[in-house]
Amino acid sequence: MYSPAHFTETDQAEIERLIDTHPLAALVAMTGAGLDANHLPLLRDGEGFVGHVALANALHREVPDGAPVLAIFHAGEGYVSPNWYPSKAETHKAVPTWNYQVVHVHARITWSHADKDKRRAVALLTARHEKAVNGASAWKMGDAPTDFLEELLGKFVAFRLSVERIEAKSKLNQNRSPADIAGVADALSGQGRTGIAAAMRRPPKA
Amino acid sequence: MYSPAHFTETDQAEIERLIDTHPLAALVAMTGAGLDANHLPLLRDGEGFVGHVALANALHREVPDGAPVLAIFHAGEGYVSPNWYPSKAETHKAVPTWNYQVVHVHARITWSHADKDKRRAVALLTARHEKAVNGASAWKMGDAPTDFLEELLGKFVAFRLSVERIEAKSKLNQNRSPADIAGVADALSGQGRTGIAAAMRRPPKA
Repeated sequence: MYSPAHFTETDQAEIERLIDTHPLAALVAMTGAGLDANHLPLLRDGEGFVGHVALANALHREVPDGAPVLAIFHAGEGYVSPNWYPSKAETHKAVPTWNYQVVHVHARITWSHADKDKRRAVALLTARHEKAVNGASAWKMGDAPTDFLEELLGKFVAFRLSVERIEAKSKLNQNRSPADIAGVADALSGQGRTGIAAAMRRPPKA
Repeated sequence: MYSPAHFTETDQAEIERLIDTHPLAALVAMTGAGLDANHLPLLRDGEGFVGHVALANALHREVPDGAPVLAIFHAGEGYVSPNWYPSKAETHKAVPTWNYQVVHVHARITWSHADKDKRRAVALLTARHEKAVNGASAWKMGDAPTDFLEELLGKFVAFRLSVERIEAKSKLNQNRSPADIAGVADALSGQGRTGIAAAMRRPPKA
């Protein structure tokens, strides 16, 4: 990913926040049929990530254990109008751009048909997301009939990603004045693009 | 992309809407250094797409004219709790999932350093997005000083994508009852995930 130094996200806590709040990644691989992507929630687990695909998804047959994959996490974003920079009225030196935050995880994939790995994939998904939306009344795996769950687990394949490198980019007008940044954050916030607006207002890392 | 028939989006108008409302695509290519992605607004232009990258972005040197690329458009999405299905209270046959809409454009890329192609890329970006946010007071290329614009155009490279095939997926609980779909749409809407909720409520194509 092209990423000038001023747009490169180096704050580990921010990178983890972006992943955890936008877990539906595009998992990209090169297959015999060319570039292929599947959209899957990926969950941080120790040094790596876990996820699962349908048994009917050819990916686990086409991409062998150890093959390189790229997981793309797409966080907040928004079109930026030159009119939103207060400096534009003075200099007119501005053109449209796009602000966004993304994380790219370059990794190696390993598949697993083991029951314990498949249960872990579902358990982690539940622990992270179900509690976030339903709190104390969160759904639990134990809520589903045992035979239904067994049948379901038989229909998917778990995988683990071993991370080789992570690249993250927070493109948030860092190359403009604080007044221009505030102008754009206000405009994006007014459009309901609160995630990217909040990221723009985040104080620079000490 | 793995896409069972009931999740495959075949409505051309819906595919174009998803692209036009979520134009910041992940443009993926295979390079000598492995899988690479850059996030770029892509604009439909006739049968193809146009876009631009920074001259400093090595992509236009690493990926030759005619190379295959994959542009991933990521539209609305949301985690789906089993608790949101009214049927869950009766059968308990439900597990967490994710709803989303994505479009994958498999294409061949062609680069251009021609001034007219670079101006077209900026002009289209402006025509589509600037008018949508600023209406009659929309920024125009003519607002910027000529020498500033010339200098800027010198710092980027335009490209065109010739489409080979488009795959789109609308994963919107189509495999569940109308009551379950309504329950999830209401919950996602309540979380502010209005885009995916509206897509779920869209009547099936006749």
